Amino acid sequence: MGAALTPLKPGSTVGILGGGQLGRMLALAASRLGLKTHVYADEAGSACAVTNHATIAPFDDLDRLRAFADTVDVVTYEFENVPLQAVHVVSQRVPVRPGARALEVSQERLAEKRYIAGLGIPVAPFAPVSATEDFAAALAVTGTPAILKTCRLGYDGKGQVRVASPDELGAAFEAVGGLPCVLEGRIAFRSEVSVLLVRGLDGSVAFYDLPRNEHDNGILCRSTVPSGLPQAELAAARAIGAAIAEGIDYVGVLAAELFWTGDPARPLVVNEIAPRVHNSGHWTMDACWVSQFENHIRAIAGWPLGSTDRHSDAVMENLIGPEIGRWHELAALPATALHVYDKGEAPAGRKMGHFNRLSRRSEG
Amino acid sequence: MGAALTPLKPGSTVGILGGGQLGRMLALAASRLGLKTHVYADEAGSACAVTNHATIAPFDDLDRLRAFADTVDVVTYEFENVPLQAVHVVSQRVPVRPGARALEVSQERLAEKRYIAGLGIPVAPFAPVSATEDFAAALAVTGTPAILKTCRLGYDGKGQVRVASPDELGAAFEAVGGLPCVLEGRIAFRSEVSVLLVRGLDGSVAFYDLPRNEHDNGILCRSTVPSGLPQAELAAARAIGAAIAEGIDYVGVLAAELFWTGDPARPLVVNEIAPRVHNSGHWTMDACWVSQFENHIRAIAGWPLGSTDRHSDAVMENLIGPEIGRWHELAALPATALHVYDKGEAPAGRKMGHFNRLSRRSEG
Repeated sequence: MGAALTPLKPGSTVGILGGGQLGRMLALAASRLGLKTHVYADEAGSACAVTNHATIAPFDDLDRLRAFADTVDVVTYEFENVPLQAVHVVSQRVPVRPGARALEVSQERLAEKRYIAGLGIPVAPFAPVSATEDFAAALAVTGTPAILKTCRLGYDGKGQVRVASPDELGAAFEAVGGLPCVLEGRIAFRSEVSVLLVRGLDGSVAFYDLPRNEHDNGILCRSTVPSGLPQAELAAARAIGAAIAEGIDYVGVLAAELFWTGDPARPLVVNEIAPRVHNSGHWTMDACWVSQFENHIRAIAGWPLGSTDRHSDAVMENLIGPEIGRWHELAALPATALHVYDKGEAPAGRKMGHFNRLSRRSEG
Repeated sequence: MGAALTPLKPGSTVGILGGGQLGRMLALAASRLGLKTHVYADEAGSACAVTNHATIAPFDDLDRLRAFADTVDVVTYEFENVPLQAVHVVSQRVPVRPGARALEVSQERLAEKRYIAGLGIPVAPFAPVSATEDFAAALAVTGTPAILKTCRLGYDGKGQVRVASPDELGAAFEAVGGLPCVLEGRIAFRSEVSVLLVRGLDGSVAFYDLPRNEHDNGILCRSTVPSGLPQAELAAARAIGAAIAEGIDYVGVLAAELFWTGDPARPLVVNEIAPRVHNSGHWTMDACWVSQFENHIRAIAGWPLGSTDRHSDAVMENLIGPEIGRWHELAALPATALHVYDKGEAPAGRKMGHFNRLSRRSEG
């Protein structure tokens, strides 16, 4: 179908790189707008069951990628670890939104931190560690406690090791296989929140309310809206998100995880960003008239952005691994919306579903 | 997979007879719960693009129906004109919910009116007309103005002719091809409303708020919630819906269209019922935490019913035929949710999409 028109008409096809639950919920949101989807994934995932077409092939199969590109009107991705080469090949044939630049600054931690710090936005003190010779200089920047994180392919707490004192850094570096890393100074915080914004093809930006996020073993377990963050911090968080998005001419939903420190000198510190719909935005499916998934699709399709207003308060909880067995009990709760990803087996640590407990909107 | 367990586990497959927009929205709702779908339709419709499997075959192809039944765990239907024989064949292999009895009383107008009147619920005065010899007796029951309606296959105003005076009945009967008909006395009404309820496999019943419905050329154009109906009438309407559902041991979402007459002796009169999700319930997709589509799936799958609470007020408007061309303008409205059925061409009279204009919940 070649290059996309703006905006894409109903009946057009959105390509999605990646086939997990985020791709699944993107495909369902596209269907609501009368758009078709074509998922490209390196293994059959839960998105494949709800898409119009699926291609299962490696991300380095350039011929299959080109064939995929020729069937769609625009392409997006549901995870930030799509190989850049795949995006470059596809973008020669059809627009990819958000584009390659968003991947470059988010799939390599050092590039991400340098990009954000370069905007004048606070991040945790950080230093590269790619060999034992880097230890002393890195520790001088970050102090301890610190966290050693691999530069690439970390998510849900994977590729991260805590470093309580300087003498633990060697073992930590071994534990991550000696891969290129970033050492980050640990930030004391009151709570973790995330900015969720959507930026349209025309540069317009809309913000969802910020959720307050809680993690368990590095995996998000709960997001609560409203967050309880003071108004001044809410405004500052939105400004941080907007600057990050505008600096890379971003299109679609972007999430930035922030620490709220309570330190007046530096109340908000960016932890990391995700150039995609985000787990901490799943509450929008039932507490907003237009969800993060639909707004991402609207943005990349060149449509007007939809309402980001919150009509209800919400507490989103993930169902990790065998917790999905609670589906029947959760389905019986009042004012609760359950989402099941149909992933089949439920190994430990795997995101199998989530549920939103809802209540009338408060003033927060 | 044989007979269904109760409740169906995520990963199970729901069969849907019919492939239009109601089937499409049922399939999308099932996906949200991690259930798969298999659509059986006599022509490729908009549901086929969002289902896991589709069988395109006539409803009298009993072998294909049996093969379909063997791939699913429960079967439902999205329109009341499914041939009874098809349902009987399928129900020998897998539960069909709502069952054949719901079809029997809703796909033939005379049976429907007799069923409802037999419960002591007011309906418009009616009489059968299957030959010119019936005219005098029928007119004696209904008076004029009246409406002549074919007993079968009428929807969206099709198969209906107004009869302003007794001498018009002959032409009306010719206009509907001399098919078996019901002559109905016309009811003067203040407004049309519908009861939308969901009844679970365990007999529990939950009600959505009643919409007030407006029609144009016999096709629903707008549903508004809250309806403005007084509390006493709201309670009476719910009781009418519950009696209709319980009398046929109904499972799933049922809609009953009512006239609100303003006559204290007979404030509510049933117009017709639909044994399925209903166009006047499309507002629930964005104004309730659990939509009519999800609650229908929950009911037929033996799940607990979900919340029917209205978190927002809503005005639903249909997009008929070329009105779908307004999609871009409507997508830009604040507090508006747009739904496009991806039907391709837009002939006059065809339901192509709808939109819900939303606002904070009032006390109505």
